[in-house]
Amino acid sequence: MTEFIEVPRGLDRVIVADTEIGDVRGEEGFYHYRQYNAVELAEHCSFEQVWHLMIHGELPDDGQLADFKATVAPYRRLTPQLAELLPHLKGASPLDGLRTALSAACAARPMRPLLDIDDEARRDDALYASAVTPAILTAMWRIGQGAEPLQPREDLGYAANYLYMMTGEVPTEENARAIEHYLILTIDHGFNASTFTSRVIASTGADLGAALVGGVGALSGPLHGGAPSRALDALDAIGSVDNIDNWIRTELESGRRIMGFGHNVYKTEDPRSNHLRDVATGLDGDIVDFAKTVERRVVEILAEVKPGRSLYTNVEFYAGVVMELAGVPREMFTPTFTTSRVVGWSANILEQAHDSKIIRPRARYVGPPPPQPVPVVHP
Amino acid sequence: MTEFIEVPRGLDRVIVADTEIGDVRGEEGFYHYRQYNAVELAEHCSFEQVWHLMIHGELPDDGQLADFKATVAPYRRLTPQLAELLPHLKGASPLDGLRTALSAACAARPMRPLLDIDDEARRDDALYASAVTPAILTAMWRIGQGAEPLQPREDLGYAANYLYMMTGEVPTEENARAIEHYLILTIDHGFNASTFTSRVIASTGADLGAALVGGVGALSGPLHGGAPSRALDALDAIGSVDNIDNWIRTELESGRRIMGFGHNVYKTEDPRSNHLRDVATGLDGDIVDFAKTVERRVVEILAEVKPGRSLYTNVEFYAGVVMELAGVPREMFTPTFTTSRVVGWSANILEQAHDSKIIRPRARYVGPPPPQPVPVVHP
Repeated sequence: MTEFIEVPRGLDRVIVADTEIGDVRGEEGFYHYRQYNAVELAEHCSFEQVWHLMIHGELPDDGQLADFKATVAPYRRLTPQLAELLPHLKGASPLDGLRTALSAACAARPMRPLLDIDDEARRDDALYASAVTPAILTAMWRIGQGAEPLQPREDLGYAANYLYMMTGEVPTEENARAIEHYLILTIDHGFNASTFTSRVIASTGADLGAALVGGVGALSGPLHGGAPSRALDALDAIGSVDNIDNWIRTELESGRRIMGFGHNVYKTEDPRSNHLRDVATGLDGDIVDFAKTVERRVVEILAEVKPGRSLYTNVEFYAGVVMELAGVPREMFTPTFTTSRVVGWSANILEQAHDSKIIRPRARYVGPPPPQPVPVVHP
Repeated sequence: MTEFIEVPRGLDRVIVADTEIGDVRGEEGFYHYRQYNAVELAEHCSFEQVWHLMIHGELPDDGQLADFKATVAPYRRLTPQLAELLPHLKGASPLDGLRTALSAACAARPMRPLLDIDDEARRDDALYASAVTPAILTAMWRIGQGAEPLQPREDLGYAANYLYMMTGEVPTEENARAIEHYLILTIDHGFNASTFTSRVIASTGADLGAALVGGVGALSGPLHGGAPSRALDALDAIGSVDNIDNWIRTELESGRRIMGFGHNVYKTEDPRSNHLRDVATGLDGDIVDFAKTVERRVVEILAEVKPGRSLYTNVEFYAGVVMELAGVPREMFTPTFTTSRVVGWSANILEQAHDSKIIRPRARYVGPPPPQPVPVVHP
């Protein structure tokens, strides 16, 4: 008889793959992409450099970077077919629209099954999908606003171009760099549900687009994608320093979670949050000091109300502050997250393509015992 | 320190959930939906009856069946928005097109996160998505053929209507019933990669559409969805009884797999294949006897060449024969599979929605040790 293997619910702590892409060390408050501290990469590199690291496995030299930029530049433009399609998706939420339009973009390319192509062709598909994602999101945003989609500006990097294509204005260097920090910090983060979804789909040998579209779907789940806008909404609801304690205690008494706090892997401060706090501090805005005061009081009151259970801000909290100050509309906070995570999913899909074993677990049947006689019915 | 858990590659034999939907007993050559033998359900029930069983948990009585049909009837029509969208997907493969259009259909409804709605609303989303899937596939097929999409006929059941909307002709009762058998037999089959994908996405609390679209993507993988048309192509390649042995030996000598044979769960005859052989025998066509002769010789020669390793036909082999005889074009064989499997995915998603634990495994980092200093680069 086949022997089955019992594991914790939700595959908690279950190792499903070996990876060279990176890791999250929750107890140290440290995470890395390849062999580099992700926070240091954000400090020292452009998005394109880290994108190259994730897809090609190494940071590019000047020549490689120039080649890389030349490869992705045309991929940042909407094809005429996509431009015609997007108005038909009007009314969809940004993530539902991205799920649909990215599916269409990959189908139109068309992408071939991972199983049938080599690494070079797979990487090319990955660069296309990641480059076209911000074009889709910003075009849908502008269509929703009654504005015309914009073509990318060749002179702008990934982050600056994203802000430009959304707002129609070339962003300040500070704002572009702040968003670039955020995007680099959120490219990858272990085997979360969306990354795992992409890898399960990739394990069937399907094309990269199929795997990415699954990732977008998983990210749209409230238990996964989170919503940096919720933390901002909370800051709005608090309104002023006088009201902080009262608001926190009311939330806790009513049993609600304080948005932007707590993470299921980090047992320390979230390194992304720490770095984004610094980034926010470098931007103009009263909201930064206010956010820091709220953060301090939430941590203090939680320590008092739930002693022994340290809670810290997660990536959502200061990500929201940074995006708000850089001019990203709140409805676009989570979609902005997808423009970086699509690179992480892609790297994982490319790696999974080297594993020939399909991911196919089992379930335990716990219903009434079969077979019961089927009542005679008339079809 | 967190303790990690080692399991076999591909989560082979790993139990990830309890289920009341059904099970596959690979060593007995038996599978069931709820408490009923799936093959008996195919023999005695209509597709709608088994669909009701999967979604509501029980076979319907006459009143329940009438209500069920009345609920799904309007869902079988393309909305004007979808009808306008589909021509823009022309050129996409049927599964890529379905992935995109089903995503759009669910976004337009719009579907709300599973986490935010009750079972009744979830079931309604599930019925909508399953009912609109054949409408999407048949409309795209007809558009690809330069024909107009057709609206469903209220007087036809699920299987007959599917054939009608594809071909424009009301099928014979024999052909409709043969396809209905095939569709019932393929609604569900354990925790295969697409079903598991749907459940991982559902575990994030995302909407049903997000989870289904991931399932379609996984099914498009060559290692999963298979291709009933390949078995037919092999019959064509063999051509005549005289050539059977020669063809089989050439394939085996060149190391290729014989399509339509072998399954990673069944160690006996595949009960779906057995039943579809009977269904095929009831249809007119020289191909049935030819297929049976090829089957017998493949089994005999494999037993001789690879003794001790019994290989039997899988569901693909006679599924292809049945679909060919019932008038389904070969490009639509795998897409036809999705029109039944979407019901199985939906049942699994509805069940997963009752589990509050997100599916989030781990990976083991095996790359160069971090952190290495990030070379100073100019962003």
